[in-house]
Amino acid sequence: MASSSDALSNLYPTPADATPEEFGTVAVLGGTGPQGRGLGRRFAAAGVPVILGSRDAGRAQQAAQPMADAGLPVSGADNAAAAAAARIVIVAVPYDGHGDLLKSLSAELAGKIVVDCVNPLGFDKQGAYQLAVEAGSAAQEAAAALPDSTVVAAFQNVSAVLLEDETRETVDTDVLVLGEDREATDLIGRLADLIPGMRGIFAGRLRNAGQVEALTANLISINRRYKAHAGIRVTDI
Amino acid sequence: MASSSDALSNLYPTPADATPEEFGTVAVLGGTGPQGRGLGRRFAAAGVPVILGSRDAGRAQQAAQPMADAGLPVSGADNAAAAAAARIVIVAVPYDGHGDLLKSLSAELAGKIVVDCVNPLGFDKQGAYQLAVEAGSAAQEAAAALPDSTVVAAFQNVSAVLLEDETRETVDTDVLVLGEDREATDLIGRLADLIPGMRGIFAGRLRNAGQVEALTANLISINRRYKAHAGIRVTDI
Repeated sequence: MASSSDALSNLYPTPADATPEEFGTVAVLGGTGPQGRGLGRRFAAAGVPVILGSRDAGRAQQAAQPMADAGLPVSGADNAAAAAAARIVIVAVPYDGHGDLLKSLSAELAGKIVVDCVNPLGFDKQGAYQLAVEAGSAAQEAAAALPDSTVVAAFQNVSAVLLEDETRETVDTDVLVLGEDREATDLIGRLADLIPGMRGIFAGRLRNAGQVEALTANLISINRRYKAHAGIRVTDI
Repeated sequence: MASSSDALSNLYPTPADATPEEFGTVAVLGGTGPQGRGLGRRFAAAGVPVILGSRDAGRAQQAAQPMADAGLPVSGADNAAAAAAARIVIVAVPYDGHGDLLKSLSAELAGKIVVDCVNPLGFDKQGAYQLAVEAGSAAQEAAAALPDSTVVAAFQNVSAVLLEDETRETVDTDVLVLGEDREATDLIGRLADLIPGMRGIFAGRLRNAGQVEALTANLISINRRYKAHAGIRVTDI
């Protein structure tokens, strides 16, 4: 199974193996950015059909083409068509405009599991910092914008550089998965488990998503100091 | 060296070895609580003289006695005397009253490195959650209360249960160290390195301390779900 490379299974007890079939098609809004493209490619490499979404269908198809040429089950579409075609929709767009985009897609996203990966961060000379978000977090903003969807927060802290680095077979980091719906958080945890090296770990309700999003600012500080692509592992599990 | 058990040094590049002499005496305000007592015992076990502080000198001496009986360099004193005698002062008190305590000790803490480990968390039936802090974080509140001290944020996410478990030789977790003063954050990073299994890692300025404090709420959710004493490791460094 993809989720249990030999080296990793020696270090960590592997959860029940995930299979690509259980996820249906996964759409990635913002699928032409590094984070969305990287996640899409990793899911597709694990056997999950992926639709990269973008405001512009042509750009999405352009981003998908090299992956499709490499034999991966990836296609491109505009955000609305991508959302409509999938069971699980990853939101990997910039924070700016995030709430408005989701509201505009609320019909397409109704009944779906929406996975918010968005980090509300500002940047200045001293680096990155958490932006004030009235709802508490981008994920809670998504939940408020999408009353008919099941919102999960995950994948905020995963390095886009590592996701996109095709020379790396594994992405050795844990993914904190937050949400109110146990079935949905379990499913998205298993989706993370599909990527070799990655573990999905339930880490609380959406009210505790803000600090996970903001932790990316700390990882950026760590990257700057140590010249790294830092992520986190949870110890003792 | 304490900071480089053989198993660990295989996994992680060890920073320049720390020596107990470079830290002087370390005081722990709130040294009778599980976190303070656990940190104090671990520092003392690494050879650093520790004074456990408490509102009540008698209670502090009582907490120190079993460690002193075991041959560790630990004594107890009231918070003010402990603060006055140390170069590095760890603040491991409950969030409630934290700002007032620090203001009352501002003379004793002037010129010292003050390490804030405090987590402003609330608890209800659904678990732990971040409290709103006007200054942004407990650490920033400490910095505002102590203009003549150098405030560092660290040790917020370390399990008190693991710290206090004498059967565990190592505490296998990283410590995120935040602050404005490079010399102070480096020193406190090395203090963390002294505890076997632990690494101190610079993780940004104090404005990014709030999410590190709040992350403890996620660790509490993880502990509940997985029956663990979770901590974090930073990957790729």
